[in-house]
Amino acid sequence: MRKKIVILGSTGSIGQQTLGVIKQYSNEFEVVGLSGWENTKLLQEQISFYKPKIVVVKNEVIAKRLKREINNLNEIKILWGINGLIEISILEEVDITVVAITGIASLVPTLEAVKRGKKVALASKEAMVVGGELLVREAKSKNAKIIPIDSEHSAILQCLKNEQKDCVEKIILTASGGALYNFTETALKNVTVEDALNHPTWKMGKKVTIDSATLMNKGLEVIEAKWFFNIPANKIEIVIHPQSYVHSMIQFIDGTILAQISEHDMKIPIQYALFYPNRVSNNFSRLELTKIGQLTFKEPYFNKFPCIKLAYQALEIGGTMPAVLNGANEIAVNAFLDNQIDFLAISQIIQDTMKEHKPKYNPNINDILDADYWARKRALSLCANTKSSNK
Amino acid sequence: MRKKIVILGSTGSIGQQTLGVIKQYSNEFEVVGLSGWENTKLLQEQISFYKPKIVVVKNEVIAKRLKREINNLNEIKILWGINGLIEISILEEVDITVVAITGIASLVPTLEAVKRGKKVALASKEAMVVGGELLVREAKSKNAKIIPIDSEHSAILQCLKNEQKDCVEKIILTASGGALYNFTETALKNVTVEDALNHPTWKMGKKVTIDSATLMNKGLEVIEAKWFFNIPANKIEIVIHPQSYVHSMIQFIDGTILAQISEHDMKIPIQYALFYPNRVSNNFSRLELTKIGQLTFKEPYFNKFPCIKLAYQALEIGGTMPAVLNGANEIAVNAFLDNQIDFLAISQIIQDTMKEHKPKYNPNINDILDADYWARKRALSLCANTKSSNK
Repeated sequence: MRKKIVILGSTGSIGQQTLGVIKQYSNEFEVVGLSGWENTKLLQEQISFYKPKIVVVKNEVIAKRLKREINNLNEIKILWGINGLIEISILEEVDITVVAITGIASLVPTLEAVKRGKKVALASKEAMVVGGELLVREAKSKNAKIIPIDSEHSAILQCLKNEQKDCVEKIILTASGGALYNFTETALKNVTVEDALNHPTWKMGKKVTIDSATLMNKGLEVIEAKWFFNIPANKIEIVIHPQSYVHSMIQFIDGTILAQISEHDMKIPIQYALFYPNRVSNNFSRLELTKIGQLTFKEPYFNKFPCIKLAYQALEIGGTMPAVLNGANEIAVNAFLDNQIDFLAISQIIQDTMKEHKPKYNPNINDILDADYWARKRALSLCANTKSSNK
Repeated sequence: MRKKIVILGSTGSIGQQTLGVIKQYSNEFEVVGLSGWENTKLLQEQISFYKPKIVVVKNEVIAKRLKREINNLNEIKILWGINGLIEISILEEVDITVVAITGIASLVPTLEAVKRGKKVALASKEAMVVGGELLVREAKSKNAKIIPIDSEHSAILQCLKNEQKDCVEKIILTASGGALYNFTETALKNVTVEDALNHPTWKMGKKVTIDSATLMNKGLEVIEAKWFFNIPANKIEIVIHPQSYVHSMIQFIDGTILAQISEHDMKIPIQYALFYPNRVSNNFSRLELTKIGQLTFKEPYFNKFPCIKLAYQALEIGGTMPAVLNGANEIAVNAFLDNQIDFLAISQIIQDTMKEHKPKYNPNINDILDADYWARKRALSLCANTKSSNK
């Protein structure tokens, strides 16, 4: 019996690569649902190849357009919006829900899938960052599995596999360092959007590339790691590894480090998540360490990149604070990308937003969404002030 | 109940470090037997601290001397020779037999312990190199476990833990490269004993340091790896890693590499073997990757270091051939250390000895010991010829 799979965000980079993996294993998986938001052209191609039963797009207008375009030949059900996303996430017959949509929109469908005890392969950072506590609590009570697709967390999962949790001395998250690691503090004051988007190793979207430059990306991953692996923040370290081949490491209580190393190819952690706990073969290109020659490791500069500190703080405070960190960060990064604020203002706006927040503990989904909404509104206003004071 | 443990070779480097680990876990282990060959001074100290019931030394003369020296206060039983080694290896009450004596002398006690279904923590390379096929066959039928103490094989064991065997694409054994990796082929012709003993990272005995310089050490480890992990030779690769912090790696069929990384501290693999499959904490110094800065990887030069090729050949031929490789190597290395033959003659003598050998397949213990004896005799005579032709 083929495993039935749904992909939220099938037209995005991770979604497309997930379909690429599934294509190679068509005996193993059957795609029953896809969500593609606005890119109906690509969605049409995916529909004609994978023949899902249900597809979700952004809204009714797009749904009607898609229906026309595919002539509704294959009697496909077309839904839209967040309700559509929830509906395909929890389809009774589905074995694996792949969540690869960006932003906080990923949280609710993830939570609903988890509540139904699904296996969720999670690529969306935000769901775990803002809702980690809630998701883990629900997953435990419903015996759902949340498997990371992020390369770092996949690496940790692989190093930790079948080792005892209490044998972990620390998680060592590797970070490329982003575009600005070698900039001086003075130079950071005058960083342009172009500078910050100039990522040394991974090609990614703009938002996450800026998150790499501020190192917030790694801060968010610290929060994710805490929830994925139930390891306290003081046991999660960050090491700068510019080549990004060591995707992360575990140091055990006997002093041994296990490291997961592979090419820059998201298909590897995607495949690992889909088949977890089994490994299966593939024809992806192999990393040759003798060709790379060297792997280097450096300290992260917490003072130069205060977003990391803010992430650790948000995690320590807990409750709704990580949601505020994430919401404020998204607003600040967008403002920077729009040339509204300076690079260094990003962390300042997040910090100021966090300072004003009174966290709710043991939050439910509404507490989290409220905190996110509040943080965005507050950060927007802080951006506007920063902007006007800049002028 | 404390685990009862016997250490063959307790006065050697690995033996002493094993006792160092046991000392920190005196609630877990009880030392019931030690063997110390000639160093009665150190043996006395070990006896007075660990209070074993039986001790083995080299011969009757040394046994009597030791008896006098310890006043036989603790009614200790003192045995000698190979029969003594066998007797303590197979003591009914013993849970773990640590085999840390050098040379082919390790084979028979290891085999006898395995035949009794003991857990054997094996530091002696030669036992697995010359008798791997036999040991593995016996271990399987008697449900005995042979756990490696070598840092490389311990690393492989840790990376492989609980993964499926058929998921291994290749084992990547790391090698420091030894003292002569950067020598040109011409320079290798004039290598002195001092040059070859100048090992970059590990401090070890002379024999194994020369084996590092010829890369035979890594060749022998390829043979060991085959038997420890039941992985064919064509799936075992060697990579030069001068810093010797990555102790070895596994590449899986999905392209992922897992690497085990730690300080140059044999207590780590010793502890891992004693507690296997559990990890326990220790206060050994921790490796800090950011302080090391870099890990480098290079190709091994099989043409410059033909001993590796000879080891692969011996493994491919199988039967008694690895015993011949090992025996001839030991003789040739000793001849080199005694300035009787040139550095490049080492591999030539091994190759010539192997050429003349007609291997026996599915060998029993006598076949192996006969092949070893024959190889040593033949290599000695080849050394003598080389020596005279050099004059």
